[in-house]
Amino acid sequence: MEGIDHLAHERNTAQFNVDDMKIVWAGSRHAFQLTDRISKFVARDPAFRKDNRASLVRKDLLKNTLRKAAYAWKQITELRLTEEEALSLRYFVDEPAYADLHWGMFIPAIKGQGTDEQQKKWLPLAYKMQIIGCYAQTELGHGSNIQGLETTASFDSKTDEFVVHSPTLTSSKWWPGGLGKVATHAVVYARLITDGQDYGVNGFIVQIRSLEDHTPLPGITVGDIGMKFGNGGYNSMDNGVLVFDHVRIPRDQMLMRVSQVTREGKYVQSDVPRQLVYGTMVFIRQTIVFDASSALSRAVCIATRYSAVRRQFGSQNGGPETQVIDYKTQQSRLFPLLASAYAFRFVSEWLKWLYTDVTQRLQAGDYTTLPEAHACTAGLKSLTTTASADGIEECRKLCGGHGYLCSSGLPELFAIYVPACTYEGDNIVLLLQVARFLMKTVSQLPSGKKPVGTTIAYIGCIEKQLQFKSDVQKAEDWLKPSAVLGVFEARSAKMSVACAKNLIKFSNQEEGFAELSVDLVEAAIAHCQVITVSKFIEKLESEIVGDGVKQQLEALCYIYALSLVHNHKGDFLATGCLTPNQADLANEQLRSLYSQVRPNAVALVDAFNYTDHFLGSILGRYDGNVYPKLYEEAWKDPLNDTVVPDGYHEYIRPLLKQRLQFARL
Amino acid sequence: MEGIDHLAHERNTAQFNVDDMKIVWAGSRHAFQLTDRISKFVARDPAFRKDNRASLVRKDLLKNTLRKAAYAWKQITELRLTEEEALSLRYFVDEPAYADLHWGMFIPAIKGQGTDEQQKKWLPLAYKMQIIGCYAQTELGHGSNIQGLETTASFDSKTDEFVVHSPTLTSSKWWPGGLGKVATHAVVYARLITDGQDYGVNGFIVQIRSLEDHTPLPGITVGDIGMKFGNGGYNSMDNGVLVFDHVRIPRDQMLMRVSQVTREGKYVQSDVPRQLVYGTMVFIRQTIVFDASSALSRAVCIATRYSAVRRQFGSQNGGPETQVIDYKTQQSRLFPLLASAYAFRFVSEWLKWLYTDVTQRLQAGDYTTLPEAHACTAGLKSLTTTASADGIEECRKLCGGHGYLCSSGLPELFAIYVPACTYEGDNIVLLLQVARFLMKTVSQLPSGKKPVGTTIAYIGCIEKQLQFKSDVQKAEDWLKPSAVLGVFEARSAKMSVACAKNLIKFSNQEEGFAELSVDLVEAAIAHCQVITVSKFIEKLESEIVGDGVKQQLEALCYIYALSLVHNHKGDFLATGCLTPNQADLANEQLRSLYSQVRPNAVALVDAFNYTDHFLGSILGRYDGNVYPKLYEEAWKDPLNDTVVPDGYHEYIRPLLKQRLQFARL
Repeated sequence: MEGIDHLAHERNTAQFNVDDMKIVWAGSRHAFQLTDRISKFVARDPAFRKDNRASLVRKDLLKNTLRKAAYAWKQITELRLTEEEALSLRYFVDEPAYADLHWGMFIPAIKGQGTDEQQKKWLPLAYKMQIIGCYAQTELGHGSNIQGLETTASFDSKTDEFVVHSPTLTSSKWWPGGLGKVATHAVVYARLITDGQDYGVNGFIVQIRSLEDHTPLPGITVGDIGMKFGNGGYNSMDNGVLVFDHVRIPRDQMLMRVSQVTREGKYVQSDVPRQLVYGTMVFIRQTIVFDASSALSRAVCIATRYSAVRRQFGSQNGGPETQVIDYKTQQSRLFPLLASAYAFRFVSEWLKWLYTDVTQRLQAGDYTTLPEAHACTAGLKSLTTTASADGIEECRKLCGGHGYLCSSGLPELFAIYVPACTYEGDNIVLLLQVARFLMKTVSQLPSGKKPVGTTIAYIGCIEKQLQFKSDVQKAEDWLKPSAVLGVFEARSAKMSVACAKNLIKFSNQEEGFAELSVDLVEAAIAHCQVITVSKFIEKLESEIVGDGVKQQLEALCYIYALSLVHNHKGDFLATGCLTPNQADLANEQLRSLYSQVRPNAVALVDAFNYTDHFLGSILGRYDGNVYPKLYEEAWKDPLNDTVVPDGYHEYIRPLLKQRLQFARL
Repeated sequence: MEGIDHLAHERNTAQFNVDDMKIVWAGSRHAFQLTDRISKFVARDPAFRKDNRASLVRKDLLKNTLRKAAYAWKQITELRLTEEEALSLRYFVDEPAYADLHWGMFIPAIKGQGTDEQQKKWLPLAYKMQIIGCYAQTELGHGSNIQGLETTASFDSKTDEFVVHSPTLTSSKWWPGGLGKVATHAVVYARLITDGQDYGVNGFIVQIRSLEDHTPLPGITVGDIGMKFGNGGYNSMDNGVLVFDHVRIPRDQMLMRVSQVTREGKYVQSDVPRQLVYGTMVFIRQTIVFDASSALSRAVCIATRYSAVRRQFGSQNGGPETQVIDYKTQQSRLFPLLASAYAFRFVSEWLKWLYTDVTQRLQAGDYTTLPEAHACTAGLKSLTTTASADGIEECRKLCGGHGYLCSSGLPELFAIYVPACTYEGDNIVLLLQVARFLMKTVSQLPSGKKPVGTTIAYIGCIEKQLQFKSDVQKAEDWLKPSAVLGVFEARSAKMSVACAKNLIKFSNQEEGFAELSVDLVEAAIAHCQVITVSKFIEKLESEIVGDGVKQQLEALCYIYALSLVHNHKGDFLATGCLTPNQADLANEQLRSLYSQVRPNAVALVDAFNYTDHFLGSILGRYDGNVYPKLYEEAWKDPLNDTVVPDGYHEYIRPLLKQRLQFARL
């Protein structure tokens, strides 16, 4: 049966041009061609095989990853790949490895926080991988609160050096990827002490291993922190622990772009604005939002294809059972996730633009949009990673029992994805930051100060928002951008205002903020949903090429928005934006949209253009040939090497052959 | 620092008698003493060590489990444990193994479906483990829909045998635990064919492996289906695949309690009512609800203790940071889960009573309460397993980054728990069954037929329910059983009636049911919540011994109920049971309940009486000595056996030493 497309009947029902949708999904023709070429290049090469990850022990897993990373680097250099191509290649190799941190954190830290001189010294070494770096920030006892880090870097003016030290057990650096077994250098965050005074947390470049034999340098204790969630998962990454015992580094290894310590040990601020650091944060969080859409879309692709293959119940007169994708319960769980994948993709595109915009403004000394940009990226990072992590697990459940097999690819995807909810800002902590921004914005309204930034502008028309009542009268009325945007904006504005009103009842604002934090988090979520919904609508208003492409995106946009209306119905009703009847009409419209998307579902996930290698899932195979391949795969388990299992003679046979004398059972 | 209780300050603030609460949690003094004794017995014995599970490869994991199972059996027989003690011992050994299915499915199937004669023949062998059985129902292509199974058992009257056969690839038995490498026998579900007619699915006892050398018998292909979610997880279980090639078994190996095939090949029904089968289902699902409370309580115990240990932000004047358990955002996520663990425990106690009640009625020929009992157990299985699976993952996130380490115990707990959402009835399929029961109940109201059963009685007073409006006027008003129960019942009744009204608009009821299935699922959930809330309230009305115990349970009960009000606010508002203001008052009351529970939180999880062995979590250690132990644990990872990792010379050194000629980067 090889070569047969078991999903051809699904693909034939598509009402749009998949090739054009692929370009929309990729973001541009260039991006499509690049990812298409590189993903196929990786998929073709057996050196990048990854279907054996779940069965490797830790040591073999790491060694295998070291091999792949070295091989990938060989390809990158020999084929003279561009930076963009190299990034794409590492992405499609799809295995957490030290190189992610080297390129994604170590180099950007030096670029963002190092002086020109420091960049000139360190970046060429890093770009050529003559050193391998990691990013040593979090400590055993300190995560979200960077200002609470305990590691110290004390300036010794006698020798013109910093002494980096871990004063307590809880100050041990803990979690940095690539640190455990691989990195030769680290950007270490430590409290800068000079002249007996603590100047807070700064970054320092510290060599941790010998470039000759890879042994830890004197005063350095370093190792791996042990197994993490998932079979393969993040266990190919050597997340590390690092303890300093008075390790000396030259003064010029402090990252001095923003603040410096002079030869005399004086702490001085440079004229480079601190705000630039936020630019980097916007950049990193934008990539996290992009990754959220990627991870979710992979899970959705698997669940959609398998839902079209799998049949359950509903057989009539001995005919085949019903495809599970035809059940409304399945559609109501799956299609909003499909729509979310697209929504997150488009909002990440916009964040990319926002990053460019903010960077240009910062360079021109305009810091006015920074609070908005910070709130956007913090909030969207939180919103999209939470939804994607939950969505991946939901997709796994949507595949029934077989989703629990590693060969479905979903356990691995989930285990690798979930840390995104915690790293680079815990999702709840980030929403509280968004809430602070909202409360500040609302509190300034009475003084006539208009909110700065397009995503927050709607709060400026506060009177309009507070009086808003939806005018939806029939299900189709929901298919208007203004109808959807109106309720989202009004609900968010009303929730923020309600929080602000409750806040001023407290004499101590900080206490009030703590006491009301649950409501504040919900207001922040409502605001973030305004952004994702409005950016999806803006996307629809841009030029979209291809037969039927726009119609599909419209359906997805309304599914995204109306499923949120459904899930947050309580907010919409409580704020008086909607009546129960209007909420019911949203549901009615949703059902009709599900029917509209149904014949296009498989084609809509084909548009992600994922290779079978990248998906790594038998359930999600492009050709839908699931059952024979699942069956084949089972026999590869090492347990099946022998018919009689190891341990039979010691632990099974004696049971079966015993003659029980004593048992009371 | 060994021996110090780092959480003593938390335990000192408890306002109730923990020892008395332990008995409430266990269900009785007898149950407490039993579980206390057995769990400590297991914890003490190094043979039952389980902290190395995550690092074993599949073969070693299975072998280790075989060893433990044999050792456990040795203890059970030598110490002459009772059935209850043996069950408890297997529970606290806490590792999925073939014996679970042997005792939990194979034996009950023979007891429930075998004739007296069959029981007399097979049960002694099974009780002594001279045979090891599994339960072979699901197939590669068939899960929820039992009636769609493809395996056949055709009667051959010439030889008085059944020929068991797998006619297609998708008919391969797939998933049965214990089948892959261990079981000697299986209860196999197959379509009974006799005289050329298909009589649907029946059970058959089939020997699959030789009792002499464990090799598969002729015509049998059997093996393991491969790795599953999680590091250790369910990978200690040999879930199997089984293919029959015309395997012959004697006629008397058909389980004949309910229907029989005569020597002549005639299919006849016995006078034993088929409904008895549902009794077994009620029993099994009741244990699943009990397990839900166990699994969730373990996660909550870990997250609560670690939330008391962990500090983040809020340091004043250089003092210690704030314990994360003091944050309202943490409390609002954690305490409802703590309350849910208690709620599920009490509802499972009630289900145990229901099982006894139903069994007695069935024996007396009274089938009237069976539909209610079936709806209760199906719905509660769905409700509690979904909430527990999600709750475990939420607890993991509540532990921050460290929850991602295997040494936190949470990844393992999650991976082992999640299949409960799928096995023994997919959770959505079950809710649709509940919805059918509700629709039938509502449709019979106009004819004056009162619903049968205490949990559904409220729908009988439908006029009262439809007119219900909450009379809550201030936050404290929510602390009345009638206030809470009133809104839950009215909301559920209104949702069911609304569905029924929408259903009759469809000319084809089945089509209507399919189209409205999402609403129906929500109505079913609302009904199940009536049961969990009302059974918690009933528990409070029973005699509860111990200082302050009842007050704590009251607080938990209201947290459980009011957090559901919050999470389903949309339903309560849309049905007009509550006004937005009353919903806000529920939130206000919740915040105050959180403050009330806060000083008791650690003691409330101590009441679960879990040993550190059973919890298997460094974050959840009883003594709170988390960080030194996490640090210690890290060094045990095999990656730390050597300072320089395997693969350095091949894959790292060449990178660092290269002289790049070609790279464009």
